[in-house]
This record gives sequence, C-alpha cells and structure tokens, in this order.
Amino acid sequence: MAATIIESARSGEVTEAMKAVASAEGASPEAIRNGISSGTIVIPHSSVSRRSRLCGIGAGLGVKVNANIGSSRDSESAEVEMQKMAVAVGAGADAVMDLSTGPRWREILHGISEACPVPLGTVPVYQVFGEILEAGCGVGEIGPQEMLDAVEAHCACGVDFLTLHCGVTGHALSILKSQGRKLGIVSRGGALLAEWMSVRKAENPLYERFDDLIDILRRYDATFSLGDGLRPGCLADASDGAQIEELITLGCLQRRALEAGVQVMIEGPGHVPLDQIEQNIRMQKRLCNGAPFYVLGPLVTDIAPGYDHITSAIGGAIAAWHGADFICYVTPAEHLRLPGVEDVRIGTIAARIAAHAADVARGRPGSRERDDRMAEARAALDWEKQFDLAIDPCTARAERAKCLPGEGDVCSMCGKLCAIRTSRRALGEA
Amino acid sequence: MAATIIESARSGEVTEAMKAVASAEGASPEAIRNGISSGTIVIPHSSVSRRSRLCGIGAGLGVKVNANIGSSRDSESAEVEMQKMAVAVGAGADAVMDLSTGPRWREILHGISEACPVPLGTVPVYQVFGEILEAGCGVGEIGPQEMLDAVEAHCACGVDFLTLHCGVTGHALSILKSQGRKLGIVSRGGALLAEWMSVRKAENPLYERFDDLIDILRRYDATFSLGDGLRPGCLADASDGAQIEELITLGCLQRRALEAGVQVMIEGPGHVPLDQIEQNIRMQKRLCNGAPFYVLGPLVTDIAPGYDHITSAIGGAIAAWHGADFICYVTPAEHLRLPGVEDVRIGTIAARIAAHAADVARGRPGSRERDDRMAEARAALDWEKQFDLAIDPCTARAERAKCLPGEGDVCSMCGKLCAIRTSRRALGEA
Repeated sequence: MAATIIESARSGEVTEAMKAVASAEGASPEAIRNGISSGTIVIPHSSVSRRSRLCGIGAGLGVKVNANIGSSRDSESAEVEMQKMAVAVGAGADAVMDLSTGPRWREILHGISEACPVPLGTVPVYQVFGEILEAGCGVGEIGPQEMLDAVEAHCACGVDFLTLHCGVTGHALSILKSQGRKLGIVSRGGALLAEWMSVRKAENPLYERFDDLIDILRRYDATFSLGDGLRPGCLADASDGAQIEELITLGCLQRRALEAGVQVMIEGPGHVPLDQIEQNIRMQKRLCNGAPFYVLGPLVTDIAPGYDHITSAIGGAIAAWHGADFICYVTPAEHLRLPGVEDVRIGTIAARIAAHAADVARGRPGSRERDDRMAEARAALDWEKQFDLAIDPCTARAERAKCLPGEGDVCSMCGKLCAIRTSRRALGEA
Repeated sequence: MAATIIESARSGEVTEAMKAVASAEGASPEAIRNGISSGTIVIPHSSVSRRSRLCGIGAGLGVKVNANIGSSRDSESAEVEMQKMAVAVGAGADAVMDLSTGPRWREILHGISEACPVPLGTVPVYQVFGEILEAGCGVGEIGPQEMLDAVEAHCACGVDFLTLHCGVTGHALSILKSQGRKLGIVSRGGALLAEWMSVRKAENPLYERFDDLIDILRRYDATFSLGDGLRPGCLADASDGAQIEELITLGCLQRRALEAGVQVMIEGPGHVPLDQIEQNIRMQKRLCNGAPFYVLGPLVTDIAPGYDHITSAIGGAIAAWHGADFICYVTPAEHLRLPGVEDVRIGTIAARIAAHAADVARGRPGSRERDDRMAEARAALDWEKQFDLAIDPCTARAERAKCLPGEGDVCSMCGKLCAIRTSRRALGEA
C-alpha cells in the first residue's frame, strides 16, 4: 500500500504537496513536514483526488476558510451547487464541503469532486440516514457496515476530508441527558447517530469501529475531520459537560489515527459567548494534542438570524486569533433556509475577514502587508488601487459608484472636507 | 442658572432622567446618580431638547449604539436624512449624530433635532469649516470666536452631545509629525483643526479656550464628546504616540469639565488590530478617569471596503466586552461614499449585534435572556417566536420565506434530517 502523507513525513520525505504548502505559506518545507509528522498540520488531499489549490491547515500557518455548499430535497440543482462551489472558490474559500442531501446527492457530489480545485469535504452519514428516512423507515434499520460503506463510497469519490462524529459516545450522551440542555443536539450527524444508538441500544459504530474507519481513510490518504456532534446550539449550552466529554474522546481518537498514519482535524463549536471562546480553543489544543482546530463560527449571540455571517465573523476572528486554524463560514441564511449562491459569496467574504484579522493579530509575517498597502492607496486617494487590494473588489467598486462625488478624487461623504486632502495640507505633505 | 445634571447628582437629587435610565437599565437610581456624579456615566440630554428615549452611557450600563446620519454636498435631501434617522431609531440605535455638511445643513439639523426621539449629537466644526471652504476661502480665515459661536449655535438647536476635537494640540501634532504615519489624520475635524493651526501658527482654539467651551455647554447642560482627532486610520498607525498623547490630554480636559459640572464622553479609535483593542480600552479608562468610552469601530482590518460593518462589528464587540460603553456604527458604505438609508439600517443592526454580544460576555444581568428564549423557540421549532425574538424580525422572516421547506415546521436546509426533530427522538423528548 502507498505511504500516506504522514508516513512520508515520518520517513523524512518532503512531498510535492508539502513543498506547495511551504511555498504558499512562506514556510520551510521542513517545518511543514514536521507539522504533518506530529499532527499539528494537515494537508487534506485524497490519493484519488486531483486538486489544483492545496492548502495546509494548522499550527504556524495562515487561517483557512471552508464554505459549505450542498442541495437539499427542497432545493436541488446540480448546476446551482456547481455555481456555489465556483463562487466560494472565487471569493477565496480554501476548502469546500458538499453537504448535499437531496435525492441526487451522488450525481452532485461526483460533479463537484471532479471540478473542485480546493480540498473537498463531506459528511457521509447524512446521505445514508437521509435515504432511509426518505424511504419512510427509521434510522435503526441502517447497519454499522452500511455506515462504513458510505464512508468508503465518499472516499472512493475523491473526498479529501470527512466529518465523522466518532465522539458521540453513550457516555457523552448520558452526560448530556443528566445535565440537560436548552437545545439538545444541533448537529445533524450527531443527532442521527444519537437516535440510532437510542433505537439500537448500542454504542456509536463510528466510535466502536474506529479502527475500521482508520483503515478506510488510510487507503485513500483521506483526512479525518472528527465532528463535534454534541456542539452547543445556543449560548446557554456552550462549554458544557457533554461538549467537553466529546472533545476528550476526540483527543484519544486523534492520537490513534495519527499513530496509524492518518491525518486528523478536530471540529469545534458552535454557539459560544465571546468570553468563553479563548478557553474553548486552549482546551481543544490541550485535549487534542495540538491537532488543527476547525470551528463552525462560533456564533456569539443567538438572536441574529439573517445576520449570522456577522455573529460568526466576530466569534471566528477571536477563535482564530487564539489558535483556531480553520474557520467554517456561516451564511446569512443560517437557521432559516438552505443558502443560495449570493449567501455563499457573502459568507465566504465574512469568514475571510475574520481569518485575515486573526492572521494580523497573531503577528503572522506578511499578513498586515495588504492592510498597509491599502492604507497607502487611501493616503494617495488611489481608488483603483484600493479596489484591487479590497477583499471583494467588485463590491467595493460598485458601492462607491452608487454615489460618486461631484468633483475630484474624494468621496461623496466628505467632498471638500476630505480628511486625506486636509491632512496633507496640515502636515505640509500637499 | 439652572443646575446641570451633574450638579443635581452631586446635591443628592435623583432627577427624572436618572429615574428613567435606572428603570431602563434595571439599576438603582442611586447607582445612576453616583455614576453621573463621578463622571463614569452620562445621560446626554440638553436642557433645550425634548427626547422621548433617553439613555445612560457608561460603567455598569448596557452597551449603547450610535448611528451617524447626515447629508453632504453630493447628496443632500432633508427627507432622506429624516428617513435615515427614523430607520436608525427603528433598528434600535440609542443615539444619532447628524453630520450634515451640505449647504442646507441648518435646515436638516433643525428638522432632525425637532423630530429625533433619542439623544442627538453633532460635530460643529464641520459646518463652520465647510462653509468657508465652499466659499473658496482657506480654513485660516475662520476666527476662534466663530468656532465657539458654531458650538453655541448647535447647543441652541438642542444638540445633546457635541464632538469637539479639543485634544489636537500642537504638541500632539509634533509627535505625529516626528513619528510619521501611513495615513496622517483621518478625522475630518481633527484634520481641519490641524490645518488651521498650521496656517495660523497657533494652538487649537478648542483646547486653548476649553473653559469657554465648558461655559457654553454648561448653559445648555450639553455633553462633551471629546473627539479623537488623531485616531488611527489604518492598522499600521494604531496605538501610536500621537493617539495616546491626545488621549492623555482628553483625560485632563475631562477632569476640568467634570469639575465644572459638565458631562463628558471620550471618543476612541478607529482602525486597531484585534490584539490591541483591550489595551486601548484599559488605557482610556485609566487615562480618562473612567469616563464613558465612545468607539468608532474599531475596524480590525483595512482591506474590506464594502464590508466595514463587519470589520467594525468584530472590533466593536471586543472593545465593548472589555469596557467600551458606546459603539458608533460603521456602515457598508464606509470609505466609499455617503451611506444611504439601507446602509444605515444594516450598520445599526451590525453594531447592535456587537453591543449585545458584549453585554452577554460581560455577564450583564438579563442580557442572555433573549438568547435563551431564542434557543427555546428553536427547540420548539416555533418560527413566529424566533422572528419576534430576532434582532431584525423582518429580515429573518423574509430570508426564511425565500426557500421554505416542502413540508413541516423544519427548514429547507435539513428537511427530514432536521437535527431538532432527530434530537427530540434521540433524547426521548419527542
């Protein structure tokens, strides 16, 4: 069997992927190799996928952004999902997850996997449970082997990283039940597995058969994204016993996969008040042996449906500043409906703002350079340069055009009172 | 002369305004009285204005939000500004500043002041300098008394709080020049005063004649908002010597105004990297004797024109969490053009999200209650209740309606895979 990237790293080999990531990050190939070997960096890249834009995720690297796309039974179009993928990548997403659950999910996933230039992730249990529920059956009718087969099918399709809720154990669920929650289990995968365990009166097969999962992912050199099936769905449930119990389990599983030569990321919350974000990151890094942390949000308030790209940009910026490595975007459609193409674009931009602000705050070499060039373009009143440097040039250009100044290179806010012009005169720079 | 609210507080009187604020905040009237007396709380309310929705700003109170409106020569309509005011107040702004600079600014300001239900602020130097520049003259042709007369005219019009850049001293400017900056002076008022000082080779009259300003504001019981004329306009300039020198001066001036019985807020940055925000707040509280801190942003990156409501919501949330009391919104139009009515709405909502997230993080009693009720409404799949509890019910309702589920009370993201429904079954709550 071919060596996985971790095995290559451990044997001292610097692969092409490591070189590409080192070059993109301005890091030494050796640093990347060390990070992969120790599990603090991952490069999600299946041995059967072709991706033109690989990325490294983890310690010492720039913060990366994932965009979720995917159809549902209520809105299913392969073309629209392809558009979403293109828009996400165009807006700067470093990775994409296809969460399609509609009847044509296979066709959509294959199409996306063929076309996607960046690492692609999925959540294999969605479809296996989705199909049984659509057929009017209960989740208990799925067998453990069918779940593993679904994982294998996704791997065979070229998926680079797979969200697997292996930490939803009977013990974690007993803690959740005994402590109570306002909002139960809000992870779809986590809830489905919990129901399966309840109906079958059995342990989570993704936990019990974790070694089988390792074997499957190892064959494709796919990356585990160990899912936070018990993540908090509201501020009140944040950082509770069930969440942390699951994290402890994920840390143990991470070590096993790493030893077996399979890359691992850990997924994290969710809905978390501002003042609990830093501790969540520190705890994950401690409990999960420094593995890359992939956060969904966190959303810092529950009351802003329609604006959760903003609530999550706030939380994501703070999380990434304190060490989260990979931010899953949240769109304005969150909590309300399936996102459309424009939601995908806005969500990607908002997450990239959070990621960049965190890179700057971390003092990542070179990160502030673009801000500095923007400041210089503003000082020069060079609008074209400002648009070029903007995170979204089209929007910046279009917004300015909505109300242009009557004269000069100022803006319609200030006109003759332009602070830049006045400042030049005041400071003798005119 | 009638007593100012500070004098009333010091004489032991609990005024109607203090009672109203205490009731709105769930605080004791005595706590409000103490805060006003010591200068850690302000209730901006001119003796000649009538406002139906007063608010307290400062230590121990909920974080408040200001929305800037105002015309410019390139876009001037009294009707549009009245709409912006109504939209801002409707979206939950606690205060409004009219920054109109177009030729009809007087008419617009009078109309807004008549109609505005919340505390109203202005920046009087804009107009006095704006008119002289429009007339083709240089800023040096304005005399110090004309600036003071402009302040008096604004007070007479019922303005409740006035931004006055009293800390732009010759010494602060010499520091700025000697240290250099990428983006000079980005405050319009600060830049205009600096130019005046340069042309006249004289000290800032708002600094030199601060006692005269105190007399004017005292007569109307108006509130100083001591402006940060040297705030950083880009990440590279954040927390530099010029900014902090101005802050030291503002702390000295705050003490003088407070002793004279006039309320004071201090304005703050600006563009600040995530990791410098907390120290900026702590420094202001120390240097300015615990005076309420009124921040513009801070924006945590320079590269997102078109999305600065998001960059500032990130910074504003962190600033307010660490003690900033009053957040000035930033709209998507920032750095590009004069904001329109929809920009005002979005900016207000984004700032309110930041303020609320900070209230929750500070552990302000009762703040998380609305989040908890939202979590309960989500657990119950009660959509009408979710809309009612949303920070912007109309948007939440409209977004959901864009793609409704084919059946049931779920959403079009999950359909039969709804985590809430699955969780109920899994946890035996169905």
